[in-house]
Amino acid sequence: MTQAKKHSLRKKIYTIIFEAETPVGKFFDIALLILILSSVTVVTLESVVELRKNYLSVFLTLEWIFTIIFTIEYFLRIYSSPKPFKYIFSFFGLVDLLSIIPTYLSLFILGSQYFLVIRVLRLLRVARIFKLTRFINEGQVLSKALRASMAKILVFLGVVLTIVVIVGSMMYIIEGAKSGFTSIPISIYWTIVTLTTVGYGDIAPQSALGQVLASFIMIMGYGIIAVPTGIVSVELAKTEREALATTKVCPNCHKEGHFNDANYCFNCGYSFSNFQ
Amino acid sequence: MTQAKKHSLRKKIYTIIFEAETPVGKFFDIALLILILSSVTVVTLESVVELRKNYLSVFLTLEWIFTIIFTIEYFLRIYSSPKPFKYIFSFFGLVDLLSIIPTYLSLFILGSQYFLVIRVLRLLRVARIFKLTRFINEGQVLSKALRASMAKILVFLGVVLTIVVIVGSMMYIIEGAKSGFTSIPISIYWTIVTLTTVGYGDIAPQSALGQVLASFIMIMGYGIIAVPTGIVSVELAKTEREALATTKVCPNCHKEGHFNDANYCFNCGYSFSNFQ
Amino acid sequence: MTQAKKHSLRKKIYTIIFEAETPVGKFFDIALLILILSSVTVVTLESVVELRKNYLSVFLTLEWIFTIIFTIEYFLRIYSSPKPFKYIFSFFGLVDLLSIIPTYLSLFILGSQYFLVIRVLRLLRVARIFKLTRFINEGQVLSKALRASMAKILVFLGVVLTIVVIVGSMMYIIEGAKSGFTSIPISIYWTIVTLTTVGYGDIAPQSALGQVLASFIMIMGYGIIAVPTGIVSVELAKTEREALATTKVCPNCHKEGHFNDANYCFNCGYSFSNFQ
Amino acid sequence: MTQAKKHSLRKKIYTIIFEAETPVGKFFDIALLILILSSVTVVTLESVVELRKNYLSVFLTLEWIFTIIFTIEYFLRIYSSPKPFKYIFSFFGLVDLLSIIPTYLSLFILGSQYFLVIRVLRLLRVARIFKLTRFINEGQVLSKALRASMAKILVFLGVVLTIVVIVGSMMYIIEGAKSGFTSIPISIYWTIVTLTTVGYGDIAPQSALGQVLASFIMIMGYGIIAVPTGIVSVELAKTEREALATTKVCPNCHKEGHFNDANYCFNCGYSFSNFQ
Repeated sequence: MTQAKKHSLRKKIYTIIFEAETPVGKFFDIALLILILSSVTVVTLESVVELRKNYLSVFLTLEWIFTIIFTIEYFLRIYSSPKPFKYIFSFFGLVDLLSIIPTYLSLFILGSQYFLVIRVLRLLRVARIFKLTRFINEGQVLSKALRASMAKILVFLGVVLTIVVIVGSMMYIIEGAKSGFTSIPISIYWTIVTLTTVGYGDIAPQSALGQVLASFIMIMGYGIIAVPTGIVSVELAKTEREALATTKVCPNCHKEGHFNDANYCFNCGYSFSNFQ
Repeated sequence: MTQAKKHSLRKKIYTIIFEAETPVGKFFDIALLILILSSVTVVTLESVVELRKNYLSVFLTLEWIFTIIFTIEYFLRIYSSPKPFKYIFSFFGLVDLLSIIPTYLSLFILGSQYFLVIRVLRLLRVARIFKLTRFINEGQVLSKALRASMAKILVFLGVVLTIVVIVGSMMYIIEGAKSGFTSIPISIYWTIVTLTTVGYGDIAPQSALGQVLASFIMIMGYGIIAVPTGIVSVELAKTEREALATTKVCPNCHKEGHFNDANYCFNCGYSFSNFQ
Repeated sequence: MTQAKKHSLRKKIYTIIFEAETPVGKFFDIALLILILSSVTVVTLESVVELRKNYLSVFLTLEWIFTIIFTIEYFLRIYSSPKPFKYIFSFFGLVDLLSIIPTYLSLFILGSQYFLVIRVLRLLRVARIFKLTRFINEGQVLSKALRASMAKILVFLGVVLTIVVIVGSMMYIIEGAKSGFTSIPISIYWTIVTLTTVGYGDIAPQSALGQVLASFIMIMGYGIIAVPTGIVSVELAKTEREALATTKVCPNCHKEGHFNDANYCFNCGYSFSNFQ
Repeated sequence: MTQAKKHSLRKKIYTIIFEAETPVGKFFDIALLILILSSVTVVTLESVVELRKNYLSVFLTLEWIFTIIFTIEYFLRIYSSPKPFKYIFSFFGLVDLLSIIPTYLSLFILGSQYFLVIRVLRLLRVARIFKLTRFINEGQVLSKALRASMAKILVFLGVVLTIVVIVGSMMYIIEGAKSGFTSIPISIYWTIVTLTTVGYGDIAPQSALGQVLASFIMIMGYGIIAVPTGIVSVELAKTEREALATTKVCPNCHKEGHFNDANYCFNCGYSFSNFQ
């Protein structure tokens, strides 16, 4: 095999594995999607005692088949990648590696095969199949809005955690060990369970004072959920509005981001009516 | 009966059964609404052991009366419909059929009468009575906004499910069978129960590490509920704004966003009466 | 006492009891507020077994004192009201009557004093003290937005209830009596508990299929909470925007409700620049 | 030490302790942040029985070290403050004092060291480190929006509490002590637990009527969470819009809403540079 042929083979593999534009590339991605989902399902089901007892050999066989396929895929990725080391140490490179290691480790360490669920992260890579649809775009709007909300949400979380520590300690002092509030960390855990309206009920206040304080936390939790919701709503609306504003470009200075009802370019003052 | 008379009878039945404009048609729909609700109530109550013991014959009689009425209605629909096969295989045609079959099946198969609750789907058909009110309109705005949000909500659900699988597996490894986390599917179920803030409490983490991870999931679940809410709010606002904005545009300056009762453009003062 | 004097006395009482503009009227309302709250607290505490055992005579005395005061107030309201019958059969008139009857009934019927909590509804009357503040205004914006959302929320609730009936019946068929799903009404109750993310945990699915269906309902419930929230947000924003629009009045035709950036009256076409 | 030197020393200490502009001041704040977090963690962990048994001396030593450091800091704050009494009686002055007292009290009163968790409030002071970032700004937008929503949220809470008292009493009458609804206060507590969708499950209705009423409350609670969320969303949007809108107005046509980097008015084409 000449160097040129080898190069063309590597490029072909690269197109199939890393891209999704060609029919073969798309087929590869759909096959990978099915393999990942099946593989995660197998790992998941193997943990059910009754199933493991009866079908252990089936599970083991399937696991090894999936792992060998993923291992081959991993080495093909390294082989075909123009910058192999950049791939190996990228987020997806590490996920790909972690998706095959636990099976080999399970030969030595019992139970390590459960770490195979990390394969579910590979789904994020296959999300690429939807590249041609509007999903990527929607995902970008969502993640942009979430990143813009991050600072406000962190301020909010800081206040919530301060409340949770203080209220948790108060509940420990009020209720004490006999009601299940055996320590401050447990009381803080209970406060989070209550504030987020999860409410397991494994620990619940027994004294009148404890129940009054609990009622107070519940109503607070019920109310302050409004804050992150409001933040995200506003940011989403803003992101979408900005996305709208970028559709108009000034024909004079080529600046983007005008409002739809703008008469003049806000950057160079060019009158849009000259153009139309 | 001549062909013409037969045709006019079929048309009359069609107007009564399929439409709700005439007084008789409206009366038919209200009677149907009451029959459906009574029938679903009877099926529902029959499942209560104490009631079934004492009133079984009453339940059976009522069930057969309802079924016979619905059967007659079903055949009248087929008879009066201009394209009977199109009706039979339409969504509502199938619901109508499934609403009567279980009673006949219950002669052979015990317990199949509970499938009669499918009759509740027939309520969607009777929603037509409200056609003349603003309900249909509101329903359309809602469903348009939901369809527009669908892509974003699917992206969101995909991310949530990935989180749920990974966290569920981590909880299985951390807590194990002694705390009730008997398998990965059960742990995933618990994670969904916790993330959605339902919190049954039938399974709850016992170890410190498990409780820390659980707290993390709860706060995350409490926070990310903001995302679908924000999405729907923004889409609803957009749908309503579009519904308003598309109704009136100034023919002179092309400014949008006039009130429905405006006589003059608020931007350039053009009289709308010049145009109409 | 002359007729004139009597009339002036009635008017004075009316001003004190029914209005809150004068200092005496305000004092009366604050005293009433305290009496109502104390009275509801007494009724509430009387139901606690340990307290009733030890302080029954205190509770009874206080109850009779409150009732006698409220009875006098009720007759003064009838006496001073210009149209006594209109007052008696108004919402607040009936609440006032129902707030005193149970004490008298408790002489004959045991336990009827607990119906005295209806007194809490009288608080809505005392909300009038806040008339001079911005609370009334805020309440009106809120209730206007809620009324505007009502049609959409009813459509939404109809769909939710249809889902709840169908899913409840499915859970009854899947899980059955051994998991606590003893009848379809109980299963519907459980579905509501789950869909609204309350999650008591007194009934919880045991089978794999039941847990999958339950997960599905939880995620749906977690998602569709976005719908009423979105509806109310949009309506609130609209109500507030409309409230803004009413601040500008056309100096020519006195039509209200112009946008802040309007140049011409949308009703008569008058140019606002002529005026400024 | 001369008076001038003393004054300069006090000013230096003031700059380090009270401000965060200088490198030393920033280092001080970060050290304080770590000390506070460590100290709260120690208090929290001390309450865990197993840990207290084994590491009591470690906990006590650490607690005294933290307390002595905080005491020195407290007196340095008094010493360096230009108006010591204003500092002592300020909110943060009181928090600083309460953060050291419990350790001294624990010599006489057992268990008082748990009140040390109040130190967590000192974190609010250290939030100053983030002064240079956008966090303070975001916090102000959030708190402004929350203050603006306060009146609406209070009206909302008033209505919710009235509902809770009435429904709680009804559940007490319907369910009674045998289902755990032992008194009206307990029933009100249960109603809050249910309405806020927390749902512990320690108390749950058993009778059919009770479950119907409970379902009603759950759906109501599920629906009315929309109200505070809507309120906060609208206020946040308004606050942000105002923050944007007030920054730039065209001096020629008085149109608002320009981007911060706009050179020309998008409405009339006026060059902003003519004006500045």
